Amino acid sequence: MPLVRISHPAGHPPGYGAALSDGVHRAITATFGVPDDDRFQIVTEYVPGPGIVRPPNFRGVEFSDALVIIQITCAEGRTLDQKRALFAAIADNLAAAPGLRREDVVVNLVETQRENWSFGNGLATFA
Amino acid sequence: MPLVRISHPAGHPPGYGAALSDGVHRAITATFGVPDDDRFQIVTEYVPGPGIVRPPNFRGVEFSDALVIIQITCAEGRTLDQKRALFAAIADNLAAAPGLRREDVVVNLVETQRENWSFGNGLATFA
Amino acid sequence: MPLVRISHPAGHPPGYGAALSDGVHRAITATFGVPDDDRFQIVTEYVPGPGIVRPPNFRGVEFSDALVIIQITCAEGRTLDQKRALFAAIADNLAAAPGLRREDVVVNLVETQRENWSFGNGLATFA
Repeated sequence: MPLVRISHPAGHPPGYGAALSDGVHRAITATFGVPDDDRFQIVTEYVPGPGIVRPPNFRGVEFSDALVIIQITCAEGRTLDQKRALFAAIADNLAAAPGLRREDVVVNLVETQRENWSFGNGLATFA
Repeated sequence: MPLVRISHPAGHPPGYGAALSDGVHRAITATFGVPDDDRFQIVTEYVPGPGIVRPPNFRGVEFSDALVIIQITCAEGRTLDQKRALFAAIADNLAAAPGLRREDVVVNLVETQRENWSFGNGLATFA
Repeated sequence: MPLVRISHPAGHPPGYGAALSDGVHRAITATFGVPDDDRFQIVTEYVPGPGIVRPPNFRGVEFSDALVIIQITCAEGRTLDQKRALFAAIADNLAAAPGLRREDVVVNLVETQRENWSFGNGLATFA
C-alpha cells in the first residue's frame, strides 16, 4: 500500500536508482508488514543546484550532495517502534547499496486511511 | 481543492496526458462535489525502467507497462461511498479515453484540512 | 521539518527557482517557527501545456501561465492564524522576488505527525 517517491541526484550510473528502490522496499517489507508484491515506487532524479535545496547540516547531521529524499505515503497505524525500525533499516540498506552515507538518507511518512487506495480495477482495495 | 499528480509512462503521442487529465477531473467533479473550475493538476511522465517500480501483480490485479499512478490531495471528509465512486469513475473514464486497461489505474487519496489551501492572493481560500 | 515541493513553469532564467525557494523558506521560518537550517526543498519545472492543468480562474482569482504550485509537508499542529500568515507571507515574498502576481501562488499543506520524519542517520529526528 505504500506509494514511495524517491528523489536522488542525477548523474549516477544505471542501477543506482534500482539499488535505492531495492533498499527502501526491503526495509518496508521487513518493518511494516507489507507483502513483497506491494511495491509501487516513483523514482526521479533531481538536478543538483536548482533542483534541490538542503542545508549543510541540520540538528547535528551533515549532509552531502548525495542526499536522497524518500517520501512514503502509507496506511496509518504503524507504531513509533515500527517507524524507528523503518528509518534505521532504510539507512542501513542504502549504506550497504548503493553505498550512501547514512547521514544522506532523509525520509518522511505521510499516513492515510486504508480506504484511500485503489490498486487497479476501480476498487477500494482495502475497504 | 484537489491537487492532482498524474504520473504516466513517457512515449505517448500528444494528447495522452490531456486525456488522463480530463478523465480524472470528470470523475472528481462527478463524485466529490467539486466545481469544474477547481482543477489543479501536475502531469508528469516517468521513464519506464528506472523511473517506476511496480509488481507484475498485486492482490489478483495484473499490471502492464501502461500503469498510471494518480495521487490526489483533497479536503478530508468524503465518505467511503464517495471514494468508491471516485475510484470506479476514474477507472471507467480512463478506460474510455485514452484507453487504459482498468487494471492499470492506481489511485491514492491524501486528505488534509480545508484550511490548508491557498488558491492565490495569499488567502486561506476555504477558512 | 517541512519538505517543500515547488513546481514552476520551465523557461525562466537561472535564479528563478532559487528566488522561489528563498521566498518560500523565509515565509516558513517567519510564521511556523522553523529554524533557518530546516530547509529541504525539491524544485521542479513543469512543461507548460501538457505538464500543468489549471483553470482560468477559481473563486474570483485569475491565474496566469506563471502559476507556481507549492506543496508543503510539515508537522501538524499549526494554528489557523499561523497558516493564514504563512500563505500571506509566501505570496508577499514571491511578489517581491521573483516578481510573481500574488494570484499565481497556490499553496497546499499536508500535515503529518512529528514522529514521521528522519533527517539522516536512520533516526526519528523528532520522536
